Amino acid sequence: MAYEFKFVRTVEFSETDMAGIVHFSNYCKYMEAAEHRFVRSIGYSIVADQTDPRIGWPRVHVEFAYKKPLRFEDEIEIHLLVARLRSKSITYKFRFNKINGEKRELAATGEMTAVCVSIAGHGTMKACSIPAEVAAQIEVAPAGLLED
Amino acid sequence: MAYEFKFVRTVEFSETDMAGIVHFSNYCKYMEAAEHRFVRSIGYSIVADQTDPRIGWPRVHVEFAYKKPLRFEDEIEIHLLVARLRSKSITYKFRFNKINGEKRELAATGEMTAVCVSIAGHGTMKACSIPAEVAAQIEVAPAGLLED
Amino acid sequence: MAYEFKFVRTVEFSETDMAGIVHFSNYCKYMEAAEHRFVRSIGYSIVADQTDPRIGWPRVHVEFAYKKPLRFEDEIEIHLLVARLRSKSITYKFRFNKINGEKRELAATGEMTAVCVSIAGHGTMKACSIPAEVAAQIEVAPAGLLED
Amino acid sequence: MAYEFKFVRTVEFSETDMAGIVHFSNYCKYMEAAEHRFVRSIGYSIVADQTDPRIGWPRVHVEFAYKKPLRFEDEIEIHLLVARLRSKSITYKFRFNKINGEKRELAATGEMTAVCVSIAGHGTMKACSIPAEVAAQIEVAPAGLLED
Repeated sequence: MAYEFKFVRTVEFSETDMAGIVHFSNYCKYMEAAEHRFVRSIGYSIVADQTDPRIGWPRVHVEFAYKKPLRFEDEIEIHLLVARLRSKSITYKFRFNKINGEKRELAATGEMTAVCVSIAGHGTMKACSIPAEVAAQIEVAPAGLLED
Repeated sequence: MAYEFKFVRTVEFSETDMAGIVHFSNYCKYMEAAEHRFVRSIGYSIVADQTDPRIGWPRVHVEFAYKKPLRFEDEIEIHLLVARLRSKSITYKFRFNKINGEKRELAATGEMTAVCVSIAGHGTMKACSIPAEVAAQIEVAPAGLLED
Repeated sequence: MAYEFKFVRTVEFSETDMAGIVHFSNYCKYMEAAEHRFVRSIGYSIVADQTDPRIGWPRVHVEFAYKKPLRFEDEIEIHLLVARLRSKSITYKFRFNKINGEKRELAATGEMTAVCVSIAGHGTMKACSIPAEVAAQIEVAPAGLLED
Repeated sequence: MAYEFKFVRTVEFSETDMAGIVHFSNYCKYMEAAEHRFVRSIGYSIVADQTDPRIGWPRVHVEFAYKKPLRFEDEIEIHLLVARLRSKSITYKFRFNKINGEKRELAATGEMTAVCVSIAGHGTMKACSIPAEVAAQIEVAPAGLLED
């Protein structure tokens, strides 16, 4: 049973904008990268193990609070926590920390709710229950960790 | 005095993902494109008119609720409304509508708060008041328009 | 019969990088946007009209020569020309012009070769002939237009 | 003296498109990520060590030949080689290999020429010599390695 995942990545040049900071759209990609690594960490792939119909995880809600800008070559730790687990959806909380030696500076927080859907031939999506073998691997993080 | 802006764009192939729908990060770009067109519509450029120090508009909060997926070649209308206007920040609300002939289907809603900052030589950013000539052009949208 | 397409777009903030110019990866997106508009201009959609198997246009070769940087809010004209038409592939040439009043400053040139493929259920792609009704609409641009 | 750099990354979901493969624009980002890691590997940062004027590396030529598609969660090895070193420019060659156990399948090749420029206050760029301390760390790869 897992409720969190952390990984570190370095800000790429292509993620910056003319203000010299990470463009805010990239936090969506960081968030998603953490989600997919979390799913892989419990021995599962969001896409590859699914057969027919395919399963997808469209987002129904995403939110960010940006505290400090991130810049080129900053090392960032993305910390995912499972905040809610329902039959057809998962809500994750995220902390985006800038790594400064031993310290972590909170650069942003985020939250994402993804719904499990089955995808028919023409791409039509329909909400469905999270596959049991996935749900069995996941638990909600302790309340203390989920406080902002 | 302006409180809204609408524009239409067509979903590009590069905005889709392997689920066949617009990747959720692109709504950040649609949102920002609307913001910048709104600012241009009041005779102002977010960047070009600024001299020394440069002014930027980093986001402090962004939120999306996704209702229906958007797909390649969908025509979408992005509707920006000014929801709050403070001395150093603006909050916009957004509706992302899929255009279906005469109808508009609500695909997503969004909200963004941007803070006005001055940018020093090395890229350090400091909150500052919205330039008076900009603030004078903007008003908050009528309450009826801001309801979800 | 068509051999060219032009359209104008404005550089978005999210397309810039910390050097203050359009990140070079975005020319791929500009190029593709021109290709898709060209295909639509001959009454066809690269994706939507296709049934089973789906048809795709993966690129086998792409090339850019960057002459002058593009910046936020620059108006650019993307000019597509059909350079070669073969049974299973099309090669396009592109000019990316910065619009400066009546003048056009050449910012970049590009070339792309896309191969027509059929896509099987699991995403396997296999080269196939360009559908006859598409090929019938396209011709190679006059040699004079294709010179650099 | 260094003439190559290799690193491994996993294809992210946000890099795929509705054809189910990596969108061709992302190879620009993979290429650039390899370039920046190479520069860091010789003890130098493309941006941070530069003071006044800032130095940039705009691209003057980029080229890709795509052999096989890459898909979500593919592990790819990006192999950079220094192909030419001139007073004001560097040309790199790239191989994008899909990792398949012990095997490497060539997915794409690429080439990029970047010019060293100094950046004045308003973002004006002017070609300049590669800083001596950078050039001293770099050599051209052996001819055998540069063959396609």
